[in-house]
Parts: sequence; structure tokens; C-alpha cells
Amino acid sequence: MEVKEKMSVLELIEQMGGSGVLGAGRMYQATKLLAEVLEDEDTAVFMSVAGPMVPGGLRKVIRDMINNGMIDVLITSGANITHDLLEAFGGRHYKGTKEDDETLCQQGIGRIGDIYTKSEDFEVFEHEITEILTKITEKDKYFSIREFLTKIGNSITDENSILRTASKRNIPIYAPGLIDSMLGLQLWMFKQDNKLHLDASGDMSELSDIVFGSKKVATVILGGGLPKHYALASNLLKGGVDAAIQITMDRGETGSLSGAPLEEAKSWSKAKAGSNLVTVIGDATIIFPLMLAGALEMNKK
Amino acid sequence: MEVKEKMSVLELIEQMGGSGVLGAGRMYQATKLLAEVLEDEDTAVFMSVAGPMVPGGLRKVIRDMINNGMIDVLITSGANITHDLLEAFGGRHYKGTKEDDETLCQQGIGRIGDIYTKSEDFEVFEHEITEILTKITEKDKYFSIREFLTKIGNSITDENSILRTASKRNIPIYAPGLIDSMLGLQLWMFKQDNKLHLDASGDMSELSDIVFGSKKVATVILGGGLPKHYALASNLLKGGVDAAIQITMDRGETGSLSGAPLEEAKSWSKAKAGSNLVTVIGDATIIFPLMLAGALEMNKK
Amino acid sequence: MEVKEKMSVLELIEQMGGSGVLGAGRMYQATKLLAEVLEDEDTAVFMSVAGPMVPGGLRKVIRDMINNGMIDVLITSGANITHDLLEAFGGRHYKGTKEDDETLCQQGIGRIGDIYTKSEDFEVFEHEITEILTKITEKDKYFSIREFLTKIGNSITDENSILRTASKRNIPIYAPGLIDSMLGLQLWMFKQDNKLHLDASGDMSELSDIVFGSKKVATVILGGGLPKHYALASNLLKGGVDAAIQITMDRGETGSLSGAPLEEAKSWSKAKAGSNLVTVIGDATIIFPLMLAGALEMNKK
Amino acid sequence: MEVKEKMSVLELIEQMGGSGVLGAGRMYQATKLLAEVLEDEDTAVFMSVAGPMVPGGLRKVIRDMINNGMIDVLITSGANITHDLLEAFGGRHYKGTKEDDETLCQQGIGRIGDIYTKSEDFEVFEHEITEILTKITEKDKYFSIREFLTKIGNSITDENSILRTASKRNIPIYAPGLIDSMLGLQLWMFKQDNKLHLDASGDMSELSDIVFGSKKVATVILGGGLPKHYALASNLLKGGVDAAIQITMDRGETGSLSGAPLEEAKSWSKAKAGSNLVTVIGDATIIFPLMLAGALEMNKK
Repeated sequence: MEVKEKMSVLELIEQMGGSGVLGAGRMYQATKLLAEVLEDEDTAVFMSVAGPMVPGGLRKVIRDMINNGMIDVLITSGANITHDLLEAFGGRHYKGTKEDDETLCQQGIGRIGDIYTKSEDFEVFEHEITEILTKITEKDKYFSIREFLTKIGNSITDENSILRTASKRNIPIYAPGLIDSMLGLQLWMFKQDNKLHLDASGDMSELSDIVFGSKKVATVILGGGLPKHYALASNLLKGGVDAAIQITMDRGETGSLSGAPLEEAKSWSKAKAGSNLVTVIGDATIIFPLMLAGALEMNKK
Repeated sequence: MEVKEKMSVLELIEQMGGSGVLGAGRMYQATKLLAEVLEDEDTAVFMSVAGPMVPGGLRKVIRDMINNGMIDVLITSGANITHDLLEAFGGRHYKGTKEDDETLCQQGIGRIGDIYTKSEDFEVFEHEITEILTKITEKDKYFSIREFLTKIGNSITDENSILRTASKRNIPIYAPGLIDSMLGLQLWMFKQDNKLHLDASGDMSELSDIVFGSKKVATVILGGGLPKHYALASNLLKGGVDAAIQITMDRGETGSLSGAPLEEAKSWSKAKAGSNLVTVIGDATIIFPLMLAGALEMNKK
Repeated sequence: MEVKEKMSVLELIEQMGGSGVLGAGRMYQATKLLAEVLEDEDTAVFMSVAGPMVPGGLRKVIRDMINNGMIDVLITSGANITHDLLEAFGGRHYKGTKEDDETLCQQGIGRIGDIYTKSEDFEVFEHEITEILTKITEKDKYFSIREFLTKIGNSITDENSILRTASKRNIPIYAPGLIDSMLGLQLWMFKQDNKLHLDASGDMSELSDIVFGSKKVATVILGGGLPKHYALASNLLKGGVDAAIQITMDRGETGSLSGAPLEEAKSWSKAKAGSNLVTVIGDATIIFPLMLAGALEMNKK
Repeated sequence: MEVKEKMSVLELIEQMGGSGVLGAGRMYQATKLLAEVLEDEDTAVFMSVAGPMVPGGLRKVIRDMINNGMIDVLITSGANITHDLLEAFGGRHYKGTKEDDETLCQQGIGRIGDIYTKSEDFEVFEHEITEILTKITEKDKYFSIREFLTKIGNSITDENSILRTASKRNIPIYAPGLIDSMLGLQLWMFKQDNKLHLDASGDMSELSDIVFGSKKVATVILGGGLPKHYALASNLLKGGVDAAIQITMDRGETGSLSGAPLEEAKSWSKAKAGSNLVTVIGDATIIFPLMLAGALEMNKK
């Protein structure tokens, strides 16, 4: 590798590719694969996002990818959706200053690593989401999770919102574990006095149709958890994905899916024999922007 | 520490406590805390189980804990429930032999780390669960996830089953991400021709009642994921848990909840100020049996 | 697995062996292999110890293994030797209380994870080691590192000391990175006014003789670093070790030897084709005492 | 964060700085700190390099840093020095193809992660280094490790070599664990028939003089091990370093120095109170080139 005074992101990643080994080699391979699947019109991109990626700064990155037609299906956690809405309602995520957690609690600050959130922002969130729930349930009371998220997206105005942009661009968002979040909590409270019903397995037919309607599927997996499993498992009935990129810090020895090598998915027909699978071990808030910037530059050339 | 020729598990753990530092010190602290919460009649034990703990050998351990009244609430993944049923229907988990995943797929073997599962066992699973779903939905079509799992537990006969034992002993099992599993897949297929509805947020009132009905709550957290979050978040409205033990291999720097230090829960009122929180970094299939054996011996003394 | 109220360590580990998979399965395999190599008179046991194992509570465990003839060669870091001497001179290791590091520095406390050391103990260490260096160098000025450590071991009286016990029992201690430690610092200071010379590569002939003089060699590797490499590399010329156990928390993806799978050693002839190699991922202060207690009980039966 | 089609490395890292949290935030902080210490003429940069950074592609990066006056002291492992020489003598590092290790051994291939080395390259290495040792020891037989490495650097011609470039530019290379490497093995073999003596603690006075002769010291730490400890400990007598950057995948809970937070160094006076310390968790073959490219661009502006 050679590092010079002013390099474009792609020039740097190509240097990593020249070495070709260890993390650097995988970084290049993954970037190349990402460029290919973004460019290929026959490949639907399923992006799964676990971990605090919205509080961690990737909100606009994901929003722009949706807006620019790079993501065909987004699968994420209730938490990322909550935090997207928190910002849509005017809240923010703050850089922490290392106070202890009991003190933070007294100050109304919830901590995610070195990120601080404010209870006053969550109060606005509660107020706004309740209004939206009221409006949404005026006609229908019964939704799949995807339908529910689309309706919320249509009810907000923040153009930087992932939900809003996805609704506008007709990109489905799935969140099989939605309930287990602050949004889930508000939903339950709303249900105490109102009718609203989310069908836990209501999205599968639609998701399956997308899988079978796509010539090829590639998954781009940030973190593990339910989003990773859902992204891969939804492709099982069609014999698995054609390509997959995974960025994770979890490790494989415990057998947990979050840290499992992508190859394991082949045994389950969640990835096809011969599919192109690349894992980069690292912090997704560093690795994914780097990979995406490299892939975009590759495709521009 | 001193290690002798024949030691009871507790004698060994007390040696670790004598050293008191690093992993060994935390192992002792966690064992002591587990013994206390198991012994204390005022403390409800919420156990969350993520990762392949049933395929990984902890099925009978968890089943026995339920049967002996040590667990008041079990929160787990769709996968662990699927694999409990797989064994209830006569299937097994096998020690792998390092074939490559494309070969395994051709042989009908799905791999989880070094664990092999057989597609013929899943075929039996499909057949049996469909019969149960048919029977369950004869009268009702509409369930919360917990109700649904209780009904399945009442429909099977394997006394070693976690679901069966929980149903018999009236211990609720929650699985907020149930849908994202092989059981979820069967459920969806069944729904193509039948009516069956699972309310994604149908369990929260009941779970909240348990939280408020308990003088104290302790969470015992194996792995992270939705189960960890659900176990902690369900205690938010009451100001948080009184004690928590966490066994994980995930790390904290990415901000992901799975690897987050338990202290972070204090900032969110998911753990009380002054609550006793102990994390042991390690493989739960080693650490939890060790901890439990030590705690049981401690309480016997 | 089944966990009962009072189990011996071996009973628990045999339960792990019954499951046979993930960490639990490897724990059983490693325990069985340790029992075998300890029992086999034809196998020399090379034990490598990196990381703060002496401050972390394993001092007496290692000392007893040497005293009971279980270790034929010990390879460790300058730090573990320094901390063995610190205790031999009356110092101690203390359980930390989470003060911040700038405050600790002002209080004369050096921190290792949650272990505290006191500067007054290091002052005693300096005084005592200087006296020993003076005495040792009265006749000879020129030593290999092993000879130097044997002489120190013969100069102290604490029967719980690893160095003292090794000297008494004629067990060699190698420490290729000795210089990089507080003992190394004292040595350098001593050399300002005195003659003393340590030959960096002075031990290789002797170590090589031990390798070739042993029918079989097994390495027991706690942590990685120089001790792991030295233990394996010293067997290179004879075609590699016959068996190896490794306990580590490091991971393999970076290519670093500390986290490398033992299988990699086969490519270098540092482990023989067909050699029995078992890795347990975990904290050595928990895993090693557990494994050793299980192995001793196995051999007693 | 925002990711665009063509960004310079610095533009991307500034986007990470805008988010400011988790890995991305630390990446920006570390890049800024690296830019500062490279620019500041009063700060001596001590760079420690552990893990297979030369086989992993960073050889030219480190060589160029030395050549451009960015490194004042290099501290590394015997392995990195061996592999620098292997390339200087015409050998190479190859991208692996996943054969099993017993097969590789038969083919004369030594594996480091996914990097292959060839025994024929090591044979050339043996031949060449023996010639150099013969030449070097014609006059002197007695060296410190640094002197020995300088002499080797002066004996080779490859302008891309780290050793050659360091010798030419009068940059000292320290390698406290030199002996524990293939170079160490050759050295020992050479000593069977020749006189050559390396003083294990022969470098400390010189290194200490550099520390005291520098207004400020910053350490740039790739990986842990002896190089990390040596870099920090050499600053102990002067009250510690003024700044430190660490890139590692090791974790802190085991107490091992390799994964220890830099803050711990403050308690030992290896880092000054108030010193600027930034850790990035990640694979150094990705993170360091990224950081360096960003820092160079920052300083150019």
C-alpha cells in the first residue's frame, strides 16, 4: 500500500486492494461487490441495519441511498425507526461527556455508548407520534408493520427522514422487532384507549413477492440481530441471496447469528452456492461510509 | 487462587472470588448475585435467552430452571423456540464435522457454528407444527405471542421441552421477534389458507402487570438482541430492574445494545440507581452452567 | 446439559461434553486433552503465560503446577515475573474501586484492568531486586535470561513464588521479552553503575535441547504474545508440537498471532500434522482454573 | 454524515467528525491528533507496530513515513523485521486460497491469516541474512538490538525496505522481542559457529536519551504486545507521553495490555495527566491507511 498527501477514497481503497490481504483486502472486495450490486439493475438490494446506526450518524447516508434508488428493501430495528422519528420531530443526538449513568438519569439523559439523548426530545416524540397514531387509525385499525411504517412516513415532513423518504419513494421498510422499542412502547400506550392492531406476520407475503420478483438479490448487512436474519431468511424459499456484504464486530465462536460467517447461510439455502459473500470486521460507522464512498466513486468512473 | 484435585463447582468459584479481579472476580460476583435472586422470594427473575442456547445444549438447563420455579418470565428468540420444538418432535442437534457449507446444503444439513441440523428433522417439525396450528386455531384465531406459545406448549408431550414445561407451570414465554424464525415461516405458510392472527404488541399489558406485581425484578441475560432489550425495557415504567446479570461476548464500543455495559441501562431507567449489575464476558454455554451450578450449591449450604 | 445442586467440577464439564458443541464442547475437549498431557510421562508440558495472570490470581495455580511436576517449561512475560517478585517481597495486588486514572496516579496506584498496585510495593521491589542483582553479579556478569531468572529464584524465600519454586524444582523459565517490564527497568538502572549482561538469544540452545530431548511436547497457552510464539516456535525444528491448548479472547481476523487459530501453526511446522489442537475462547482467569480442576479430577479417577 | 460520489479521504473523515460519536467520532479525533503530532516539530513520534503489518501491506506506508521524517522512533516485532527483510531479499507475500494447513505445510507454505509465505523465500532469507551476519560481525561481535538492526539496514539495498530506509535516515528501530522470530532463529544458528552477542537491555540508555531530548512525545500504536508496552514504558521516567493514538481489535476486560484503554497508562505515569489519548477499535490494515491519508490531507490544507 502507498498513502499519499491527497487521495480520493477510491484511490485509498484500491491501495488496500493492491495488498489484498487481511482486513484491507476484504475492504476492497466488499467495496467492489457493493459497487457491482448498486450498479446492476437486475439486483435488488436488501439492506439490513442493526445497532444504533441512526444515532451513530448514518441517518442521512441511509436516507440518501433510498432517495437515490440504491436500496430496494430496508430492514431495521424499532430503535433506528424511533431515532429517525425523534430527529424528524426536532430532537437530536448529542456527543456524550462521560458522566456516570445515575447522574445522566437524573438529568434526563439516556445514553447509547458515547451518544446522549434528551428526555425532552422523547416527550416531543411521544406527543407527535400519538397525534400521528390518532390520524393513521381514523380509517384503518389493522396494519402490517410495513404498512404502518409507510403511513407514519407519509405523516411527517422532514425530508431528511428515512421513513419519509422511503414512503415517498415507495421503498418498503420492514422491522420484525418493531414492538421492542420506544415506538413500540408508545404504540402499546396508545392501544390502551384506542384500537390499533399490528399483524406480526403480516409482511411476509409482500416480502416474499419482492424476493421472487427480483432477478437477483444482494443483502448489505450492517450489524446482526433480527434485521440480518430477516434479510437472509426472506430469501430462503428462492434458494438464497446472490451476494452479501456484512460489516460486524461480533464474533463467530458463540454460534450466534450476529457474528456468524456469511458462508453459514449457504448451508441453510439463505445464500446460493457460488454466491459472492464478503465480511468486513469493524465498526460500521467507519467502515460503511468508507465502503459506500468507494463504491460510488467506482461506479462514477 | 488454588486449584485442587477434586473440587465442587462452588469451591472453585470461591477461589475465583478470593482473587476478586478480572473475569474471575466478576464470575464470583455474578454467581453470588444469581444465588441471591434465585433465593429471594420477593424477586421475580426475568431470564432473556438469545443466541443458539437450545441447540447449544442449554435446553434442559432452562427447562429445569422453569420446572423448579427459578424463572418467572422467559424472553427468548423464535429460533430457540423453534429448536425446542424440533427436539420435542423427535429431532436432534448434531456435532458438526467441518464440511463446507455448500456440501452441507446438498446433504440437507443446516449449520449453526459447529452444530448440524437435519432437513428431515425440519420436515417433521413442519408437519407437527401445522397439526398443532390447525388444532389451536379451531376456536380462536387471534392471539398475543405469549398466548400462542402457551397453547403450543399445551399441545406437546415432551416433558423436556421448555415450552411444555412453561405452559404446565404457568410461566410466560415472550418472544417479540418470534416471526423471524422457522416457526414464523410455518406460521406464514399456514396463514395462506387459514386464519391466524398474532398481535405484535399484544403482550405488553400482561408483561407490565408482572413487572408492577413484583416487589423486585432481576434479569438474567444470556446474549443480547431483542430478548435483552425487552427484558430491561419492560421494567422502564417502574424505574428499572433491581439487579441484572449479563453474559455476553459482544463488545461495547459500537454502541450496540447487545454489547452495552449494564450500567448504560441506568441512564434509561431500565436499571435502578444502586441496582446490582454484573457482566461476565464469555461464552454462555460455558459460563452459565458454571454460574448456575455455583449458585445452586451456594443456596444449598 | 443438566445442572444440579452440588456438582464436582468434572461432573459439570462432562455435562458440557455431553452437549459437545460451541464453547461448552471445546471446554470439554480441552479439559480432556489437558488431563491426557498432564498424565502422559512421555509428554513435556510447555506452558506459556501472557497477560496479567499473576496479578489476576493465577500465581499460586502456576506455582502449584510447577511444584507438582505438571509443567516442564514455563514461558512468560517480564510483567508476570515482576509481579511474582512484587508479591515475594511482600507486595500485593488489590481490587480496584473505579477511580479515574489521573487520580490513581496521584495516589501512587498503577492500574491493570480492575487491579490496583501500589507504588510503595514497587519501592520495596526496587530495593530488594537491587540487592539481589548485586549478590547475583558478584561472581558472574553474563547470563542467559533463563539463568538470570533461576538465580533470582534461588535468591528469594517466598515458597509461593513461581520463580522460587521453579528454581527449586529445576524447571526453566524463559522470558524472551523480559527487558520490557519493571524488572527490565531496574536491570537497566543497575547496569548504569554495574556490570551485568543478558544475552538476548542465550537460551535457544538449551530450549532446543529440551524439545529434542522430549518424546512429545504439548503447549498450554494462556493468552498470546511472545510467550505463545516462543512456545510454538521452539518446536519448529522438530516438526512441531504434538498437542496444544489455547485460551484467548483475541480474534483471528487481523492475522495477529495472539488470536490466530492453532491450526495455522501446522502450516509452519510449529504443530505436527495430526496434532490435537483445542482453543477455548474466553477469559483465562475463569477458563484455566476450571479446566485444570476438571483435568485433575479426571486423572484422579 | 453525508457520502457523495467523489470524496477525498479527508472529506469523508470530516463527515465522520460531524457525527462525532461511536467509532466514526473517534476516527476523526484520532486523525486530527495524528495530523497535529506529525506537524508539530516539538513532538517526537514513537510508532509501535505489532501484528503482521508488513505482510499485511503496510511495509511501504511505514517506509515512506520514515523517509518523510514522520517517525522519530520505530518499535516493532521480530516478525515484522523478518518480513521486511524477506521482501528486501526478493521474497513476497501472497494472497491465500483457503487450503488446509497440513496441505500448506507439505507445499512449503506458511500461513498468516489469509497471507501465504513460501519456504523458498525463507531459504533465500536464510542465505542472505547469514552473509550479512558474517559481514557485520567481522569487526564487532557485541551489539545492542538497535545497533544490530541499523547494521543490517546498512547492508541491504532495497530502497523500499523499512530497515534500509531507517538506517539511511538515522531513525532508530527497537525490537525488544527480536529474538522470538525467524531472524532470531537464524541468529541462534549463526551463533553456533560464530561469535555474536545481542545485549537484551542494551538499548535503554539511548532510548531514554531520546525521550528526555524530546520536548514532547506522541505514540502511534498499531496493535498491542511488546511494542505498545515498550513505547509507553520508555516514557515513564519523564512522566509519560503527551499524546497517544491506538488502533486495536483486542479488548480490555481481560486486563491484558494489548487491549487496555490508553487511559490506564496515566495511572502508571506512562501517559501524562491531561494528555490527548484516542483509541480506534478496528483492523489496523484498514484504519491506519485511512487515518494517515486523512492526516496528510489535513496538514496539506
